[in-house]
Amino acid sequence: MEQEWIEYLRRVIPGNSNVPVGIGDDAALLELGEQHRCVVAVDIISDGVDFSLAEVNPELVGRKALAVNLSDLAAMAARPIAALVALGLPRSHARSLAEQVYKGLLKLADSYQVAIAGGDTHVWEGPLFLAVTAVGIPGPGGIWRREGARPGDFIVVTGSFGGSILGKHLTFEPRVREALYLAEHYRIHAAIDVSDGLLLDLWRLAEASGVGAEIDFDKIPIDPAARRLSLTEGDQKSALEHALSDGEDFELILAVPPEEIPRLLADKKVGTPLTAIGCFVARKGLWQRNGEDRKPITPAGYVHG
Amino acid sequence: MEQEWIEYLRRVIPGNSNVPVGIGDDAALLELGEQHRCVVAVDIISDGVDFSLAEVNPELVGRKALAVNLSDLAAMAARPIAALVALGLPRSHARSLAEQVYKGLLKLADSYQVAIAGGDTHVWEGPLFLAVTAVGIPGPGGIWRREGARPGDFIVVTGSFGGSILGKHLTFEPRVREALYLAEHYRIHAAIDVSDGLLLDLWRLAEASGVGAEIDFDKIPIDPAARRLSLTEGDQKSALEHALSDGEDFELILAVPPEEIPRLLADKKVGTPLTAIGCFVARKGLWQRNGEDRKPITPAGYVHG
Repeated sequence: MEQEWIEYLRRVIPGNSNVPVGIGDDAALLELGEQHRCVVAVDIISDGVDFSLAEVNPELVGRKALAVNLSDLAAMAARPIAALVALGLPRSHARSLAEQVYKGLLKLADSYQVAIAGGDTHVWEGPLFLAVTAVGIPGPGGIWRREGARPGDFIVVTGSFGGSILGKHLTFEPRVREALYLAEHYRIHAAIDVSDGLLLDLWRLAEASGVGAEIDFDKIPIDPAARRLSLTEGDQKSALEHALSDGEDFELILAVPPEEIPRLLADKKVGTPLTAIGCFVARKGLWQRNGEDRKPITPAGYVHG
Repeated sequence: MEQEWIEYLRRVIPGNSNVPVGIGDDAALLELGEQHRCVVAVDIISDGVDFSLAEVNPELVGRKALAVNLSDLAAMAARPIAALVALGLPRSHARSLAEQVYKGLLKLADSYQVAIAGGDTHVWEGPLFLAVTAVGIPGPGGIWRREGARPGDFIVVTGSFGGSILGKHLTFEPRVREALYLAEHYRIHAAIDVSDGLLLDLWRLAEASGVGAEIDFDKIPIDPAARRLSLTEGDQKSALEHALSDGEDFELILAVPPEEIPRLLADKKVGTPLTAIGCFVARKGLWQRNGEDRKPITPAGYVHG
């Protein structure tokens, strides 16, 4: 389907001044403005692991494949510029599936001004997969890393947690705008996005920074979906447990120096609720904070196979 | 296997000054030197389509996954800087397979000074696949495109053609050094790499340039493997037919203005034989040239599913 498919893509993918050479050549040329650096991320999502094609709209699959990468760029405070789409398609209904996947992907790309600069569409005997590579540039405030959190920094999170399997894992908004705004207006020492669970990704950030983290469980913003999920017949977890350990919230965890906290938490322009749920400490590991009491916590989360 | 695997990758992947932030963060930061532009390409290769895992050394699979992308960058005359590796692994022997694939990939990356800046390793129930994204920068001579060939330009090819299925499709050298050298020292109007067959990719270049191409069949550099393949029992094609239509030679086709030809064909520094096999003409389509005679040719080649 190559030639005809490439012509289809050229028709449906809008031109973009950041991509002087796009679909249809051997590679794409990206214009990075004044930047000498770019930020790149790739994530695979596949039928049977990240979604079940039998149960979801393929448009949401395409959306998710791009959104998870935009979330990675957001966690670095990078401005997304372009994406490359590697798409593996089961032979049986390759063309219609490809169109639907692209439809959802292009809709999200449009809303974040991300150019689809190229890709590879591969028909095979295996299940559907997507490996999207996102390319961005450092935002005006510079990039964030996982390392850099210091003892005394507050742990601030965007949005709410838990129960994403009920829908948010497909429809979440990557925190791109929030990240660019925050990076421009505040000193943030470190950041990560929550793909594998609040505790697990918080632990990763803390480990990368060489610090520990104390959390007030009663401050965790629990998503209504976590409450609904915990009430499902057969569900063994409380809403809080879902919030702490479910994967794919795609919210940000930020390490914020204390002097920034009053202004940050009062800022109405962020667009998404921010919550301080604890602070980073010198003693490594994760700790549940309850007044003066500290109990060790084992990070539990979804670890990708 | 995520955390332990990431630590393994951090150990085996060498540091690189072009990647200030690499494996282990949410995204990678690439340093592009003085460039405000980058060149990006992605290709999928998979078990059952591009190789048979039952028959090949997985190290060669890893090598090929990177090599096909370096070939795409070579066709743009771009200098490769970094690659991102999306790897889908069958659950049954994921870890050992991943190590072997990476071993071959890293060996090739080392010989072209390509940094492995990140990736995603994904264990699933499907077959092995790799989607490598290569990032490069325009070389000192600027980039080449498929469009730009003019009537009168010579068709010049690197290396030889046909029979790659006997081995070259796994072990070929991407023409990166040749491309950078040629782009720096000669005016080249257009280029493409031969992934789907000499005639088919020549036709693509000609179409993209809005011109036609006349070929002297007796000038085609036929690979010894094409001759061996044509002598195989049951093989229905001549060595020339293999050279014209087999895929995966990963040689370059160049559109070279006539005034550059004498110096180019006498240049001993290119490193790979160059052959002029015909010229571009105003009349669109592909034509077999035989003295004053012209016969139309239908491009035949392997079209990816």
